[in-house]
This record gives sequence, structure tokens and C-alpha cells, in this order.
Amino acid sequence: MRGDTNRGHRVRLLNMTERTVFFLSDQTGVTAETLGHSLLTQFNGQEFRQVTLPFIDSDDKAHEAVARINAAGEADSLRPIVFSTLVQDNLRSIVREAQGLHLDIFDVFLAPLEVEFQQESTHEPGRAHGMTDIEAYMRRIEATNFALANDDGGISRNYEMADVILIGVSRSGKTPTCLYLALQYGVYAANFPLADEEFETGELPDVLLEQKHKLFGLTIAPERLRHIRKERRPLGTYSSAQQVRYELRESEKIFRRYNIPNVDTTEFSIEEIASRILDSTGVERRVRA
Amino acid sequence: MRGDTNRGHRVRLLNMTERTVFFLSDQTGVTAETLGHSLLTQFNGQEFRQVTLPFIDSDDKAHEAVARINAAGEADSLRPIVFSTLVQDNLRSIVREAQGLHLDIFDVFLAPLEVEFQQESTHEPGRAHGMTDIEAYMRRIEATNFALANDDGGISRNYEMADVILIGVSRSGKTPTCLYLALQYGVYAANFPLADEEFETGELPDVLLEQKHKLFGLTIAPERLRHIRKERRPLGTYSSAQQVRYELRESEKIFRRYNIPNVDTTEFSIEEIASRILDSTGVERRVRA
Repeated sequence: MRGDTNRGHRVRLLNMTERTVFFLSDQTGVTAETLGHSLLTQFNGQEFRQVTLPFIDSDDKAHEAVARINAAGEADSLRPIVFSTLVQDNLRSIVREAQGLHLDIFDVFLAPLEVEFQQESTHEPGRAHGMTDIEAYMRRIEATNFALANDDGGISRNYEMADVILIGVSRSGKTPTCLYLALQYGVYAANFPLADEEFETGELPDVLLEQKHKLFGLTIAPERLRHIRKERRPLGTYSSAQQVRYELRESEKIFRRYNIPNVDTTEFSIEEIASRILDSTGVERRVRA
Repeated sequence: MRGDTNRGHRVRLLNMTERTVFFLSDQTGVTAETLGHSLLTQFNGQEFRQVTLPFIDSDDKAHEAVARINAAGEADSLRPIVFSTLVQDNLRSIVREAQGLHLDIFDVFLAPLEVEFQQESTHEPGRAHGMTDIEAYMRRIEATNFALANDDGGISRNYEMADVILIGVSRSGKTPTCLYLALQYGVYAANFPLADEEFETGELPDVLLEQKHKLFGLTIAPERLRHIRKERRPLGTYSSAQQVRYELRESEKIFRRYNIPNVDTTEFSIEEIASRILDSTGVERRVRA
């Protein structure tokens, strides 16, 4: 009993060191989150509870944010970290009353930019992730539709229109990477799965070779691929060590045979895979999100 | 002739005021781009040429970045703006030699965080968009597969597993929003198109009503919807003014009848629609990208 109580107490003490991080925005909060994550990953061993408060566009909502920050600070016994991208002065001054460490990109970076441009900033909600450009929205939608129609070697095979065509074995990351390239950058990305037909002949089909300069390969460590495939089908050849090694070996042979640039996705997030593809191929972003 | 020359000269003068903005990173550049866009949208009337230099992870690449920044400054006759998220001190000091306005989140925000945490930051490449967590990667992939399988009322209709089910007329933004929710936040988002069957009866099918608390509606201005639909099918009823108004009117009736929260996507980007859905429904992010 006493042991249990002690354990409970230790757990509570550990929890007390978990700090709350707030991401405040008059828009989506994407900028505040992105900024915050980049900074917080520089500190190992810290645990954070993360709360995004988007669309703070009135005095009421700003006061509500203050109340939530102060309540979290009391509950944690540690003052919260507040990443804020509010631009309207009245809302900024309300939020500032909250008991927390305030880190605000507009505080520090607007002034040097105003000097540089010899122009005052608007102090109006920024629409950094907003519908500033209907054409950009349309391009992202069309690129997404393209990725869906040209996924997994399927339906359209409209490879003439593609900016890039990803090839690789099943579950090497092709589909999410194509969708991310479409949504984030408006890039037209198709993908084609390498399977038995390619492995047995060691050759790529003509429909791909006609667009050889657009091909980009994805590969992955065998153990990682097994782990991913087992999530889908725990049993059978599909996720067997032998099958996975065979497919990866043969796909890498094909990359070498045709001199296709490729990346090992084992250690990479979807963002990293996408960025490396753009960087390696020189494909231009059609949209900057 | 003289007129043409003058016009040419004016054009050149106008071009000279276009400034180059660089986004430098030892990783993907997503953080630098996001930060930069938020700040630059505060300045109306400025035109920028944007260049992302990701994966600067060696002295050579840092020197190459310096050369590109300086070359752009000479070509533009305006010093470039440099948003940088490099963390390694040797690379930072090389990049600093470039002739530009340097804006660096680590310069200004690491020190207060180090004081707050009573801990030095690692100064190691941050992996803010990196594979810090294989489980997070898997969740995003699985959420993406879920969105694909449950797109457009199709295939699985595995609505028990859904966090949210978007409903709305064709081309109101359901598919890209579901994919964005999956890729960015790991949220399980299904979607179901409202069409003749629902409009004629004014009712939703049982498969949706069983999960009524997960339903979220998308609507859009008629003119905007026509514009989007015409991109796909320029002629025919699908994009006629009458049809578009009819479908939107009936879908909004359904939202009212069943008291389904909804958002008008006309003025919103995909990020904004996604953020508003999370904000309105209280659905929690499963991943913070």
C-alpha cells in the first residue's frame, strides 16, 4: 500500500515537471507550431503538453487564452511557454498579460524588416496560410487530384504531365510523399510500384522509360519495411524477411541499372523525403504554402 | 522605338525592386519558409523571388549558400533577406558572412529558452520535421491510408474508426482537407459526397447518422464552386449556375436539419479549413508534425 502510494507520488512529481506549451495565432497556428517545434527539439529530455489556440480574433478570445495559460501555469507549477503569432496590437497586449515566457516572431523580426523595406508592416492578420491566391489553391487541388489519379501505377498514367514519378516497392512511402508534394508544393507527383514483373525481368516498363528523366526511387531498410508491412498484413510472404530483402535488392538493382536517383527513406519523415526529392531533382515548387 | 525603349527601361527598373529571399536550413527548410512567409505577408506591395536551400550540412554547402546569396544581391542591387534555421555554430558563422539581412530564430529565442529550462540547447540539427518518432510516421501513414480508403463515400466506409467525417457537395474541398488532416495531424478523416439521393429525400443515409456526432459540413459560395467545377468539366449541368445553387442550397438545408457544424470554405486555404475543423470539433491532433 505504502509502496503504491509512493509510486503514485513519484508519478505525480514527474508529471509536475511537464510544462505546457501554447501556440497562439489569429490564424491557423501553423507558423507558431512550426517555430515552436524547431526550438523545442533543441532541448533533450523535456516533456511538453502542447495546446494550439487558433483564430484568436477578438478581445474575448484573447482573454480566454490568457485564462487558459494562467490555469496551465498553476496546474503545472511551471510557467508555460507561449509561442505567439498574433499581429493586431490590441490582441497582442491582452495576451501579454498571461504569466508565461512569451516568444513572438513579430516582436523581434518586424522591426528590422520595416527598416530594410522602408515600409511599415500592416499589423493585419497575415493570411500566411490563407487564401491569398485562388490560383494557388486551385493548383494544390489539381496537384492532389493528379496524385490520386496517378497513384500506385493506376488509372491515368498521365506521366507526361508529371513533374516527378516515384518508383519503389510496396510501402516504401510513395503515396504519402506524392500527396505531400501536391498539398504542400503543388507539385505533380505520380508513383508506380515496383513488383514481380519488374523484378523478374530487371526492366522498367516502357511507360516509365519514356519519362526516365522524371523517375526517382525510394528505398528503405529491410527491417523497417517489414515493420511497416506487418502493420498491414501481419502474416504471409508480404512481410517475410526473405521477401522484403529480395524486393529491395531487386529494386536497388533497377535504380543502378537505369541510373535513377534515389533516397533511403528509413530515417526520414515525409517532409524530409519530399524536400530531398525537390532538392535532388531540381523540380520547382508550383506553390509556396 | 523610343517609346519601346522607355517601356523596356521602366520594366527593368521595376524588376530591380524585386528582392530575393533565401530560406536556409540544415534540414528541410519548412520552418524557415513558414517563418518567412508569415513575416513577409505583413508587407504589402513587395515582390520577392524565393529560394530554399535545404540540407546545408557541410562547410562546402554553407560556402555555396553564401555565394548564391551574394550573387543574388548583386543581380538585384538589393541585399537579400535570409531566413535561417541552421543550428551548428560552424555553419552559422560561415553563412553569416553573406551580404544580406539575416533573421534567425535561434539567435533570438534559444537564449531565453535556455534560461527558462536551465539547460543548454544541443546545437545539433533539430529534426523538427525529422523522423524523431517512428510511431508518429506510422500514424501519419495509416491516417493517409484511411483517408484514401474512406474518400468520396468509397470502399471501406469504416466510419467507426473516423475522427471526423466531412460531408458536402462535389468539389467543396473534402478530399484535400481529409488528406491534409491525415498528413499534418494524423487525424482519421473520412468524407462522403452529398448528391441527388440526399437532396431528393433531404435525409442522410443511416451509415452517416450512426456517426452523426462526427459529421462536419463543408459549403462554398456558388460562384466559387462553379469556377472550380469548370476546371474539371467546362460544359454541362455539373458547373451550371442553376445546378450549383441547387446543390448548395439543399446541402445547407441538410446541415440545418441535422444541426451539423459546418464551414464556408470560399475564402479559406486547405490549412485554414483543417484548423477550423479541429478547432470547432475538438478533435485532437494524433501527431504534431
